[in-house]
Amino acid sequence: MIDMLRIDIISAVPDLLHSPLNHSIVGRARQDKRVDIIIHDLREYSEDKHRKIDDYPYGGGAGMVLTPQPIFSCIEHLKNERKYDEIIFTAPDGVRFEQKHANQLSIKQNIIFLCGHYKGVDQRVRDELITREFSIGDYVLTGGELPALVMTDAIVRLIPGVIGDAESALSDSFQSGLLEGPVYTRPSDFRDRSVPKILRSGDHKKIEQWRLDQSIKQTKGRRPDLYKKFKKNN
Amino acid sequence: MIDMLRIDIISAVPDLLHSPLNHSIVGRARQDKRVDIIIHDLREYSEDKHRKIDDYPYGGGAGMVLTPQPIFSCIEHLKNERKYDEIIFTAPDGVRFEQKHANQLSIKQNIIFLCGHYKGVDQRVRDELITREFSIGDYVLTGGELPALVMTDAIVRLIPGVIGDAESALSDSFQSGLLEGPVYTRPSDFRDRSVPKILRSGDHKKIEQWRLDQSIKQTKGRRPDLYKKFKKNN
Repeated sequence: MIDMLRIDIISAVPDLLHSPLNHSIVGRARQDKRVDIIIHDLREYSEDKHRKIDDYPYGGGAGMVLTPQPIFSCIEHLKNERKYDEIIFTAPDGVRFEQKHANQLSIKQNIIFLCGHYKGVDQRVRDELITREFSIGDYVLTGGELPALVMTDAIVRLIPGVIGDAESALSDSFQSGLLEGPVYTRPSDFRDRSVPKILRSGDHKKIEQWRLDQSIKQTKGRRPDLYKKFKKNN
Repeated sequence: MIDMLRIDIISAVPDLLHSPLNHSIVGRARQDKRVDIIIHDLREYSEDKHRKIDDYPYGGGAGMVLTPQPIFSCIEHLKNERKYDEIIFTAPDGVRFEQKHANQLSIKQNIIFLCGHYKGVDQRVRDELITREFSIGDYVLTGGELPALVMTDAIVRLIPGVIGDAESALSDSFQSGLLEGPVYTRPSDFRDRSVPKILRSGDHKKIEQWRLDQSIKQTKGRRPDLYKKFKKNN
């Protein structure tokens, strides 16, 4: 039996998660049994008779906070069934998620994503259960579902076989430390705009050099921070 | 007639977009006519008899590139119908999307998101049609759909009336320049872990001070870069 990465996603709005997990590359990866993704509805773990999962924050203030009980019950239930490498909480104050984290997580066995929602989650959950906290960027979202989907996508596409051409994943932006330069496809002329001659020359050495030059130019211009890192490492 | 923000999302895999736009806060905002979101299937704009929308990159290499024709046709069709404030391309080499961009975009009238997919999009599209390029973070995804959903979510939640309690959007992380500190809800005791006494004291002045202290502590510890900016501005 081949070990397959298993991702459990715990959410207060599980219906929100379906379409990105059922289509395109991630959807095919699930069908091909290259990854197992299971969605858990937090409400199903609530011991409250109205299946309540949130309550007002202590100390007052706006927004609702996810209560500890359903989350503890759900995560403890999962942990009783298998060992988890990471239990990840999606939070704006988490560590900034980067490509290196996707690389690390893509070779794990079992991962849980707990999606934050409403105004947040009771701090006791974060103190007791969570092993890593990630933010996907410096902006506020309505919940942790999109961040969990983003991280899942970044991870799943790295699993061998998921992207048809293995080279594609390696030549991407960030893997080399540089942004990618411009790409062109057919037709060679479109509305008076032509594809650069060099790309049509068939001279692979020159093309490679042109691409590297463009990559460096793009990175220097758009992300001097990345370029500085790249120069230090190369 | 009230002016409503209209967001057009152009995608090669439109089915992927549905569930996050139909549920929870964004779904309700659409139902309540606080935002108009329209999904466009790129294939419907292809003049190719097989509705082809991608082709091999010039100069060789892995992955497929979106061809210019369907994108030009779709965007020109939309631009003929109304004036767009921004035509945004989601790309890993774009400007890093931050809260300030969500704030700016939330007061616009008409926005297009063009989702990148496969290995990229023909550079002529970016040169001719696109007004802004955003990246949601330093990681590679299978397409631009999740980034478009993330930006849409960040924008829509800022539209007045979308989040029930207006205060909630303003007290979030990043709006003040600080991360939020811990939040707690009922019960006050859970598995031998208690909610900090101060939050149960009813002393609102002290609670406010405690929250600010926690916010500063959290930001200093986790995001010294943000804290530096905050200190400079305050």
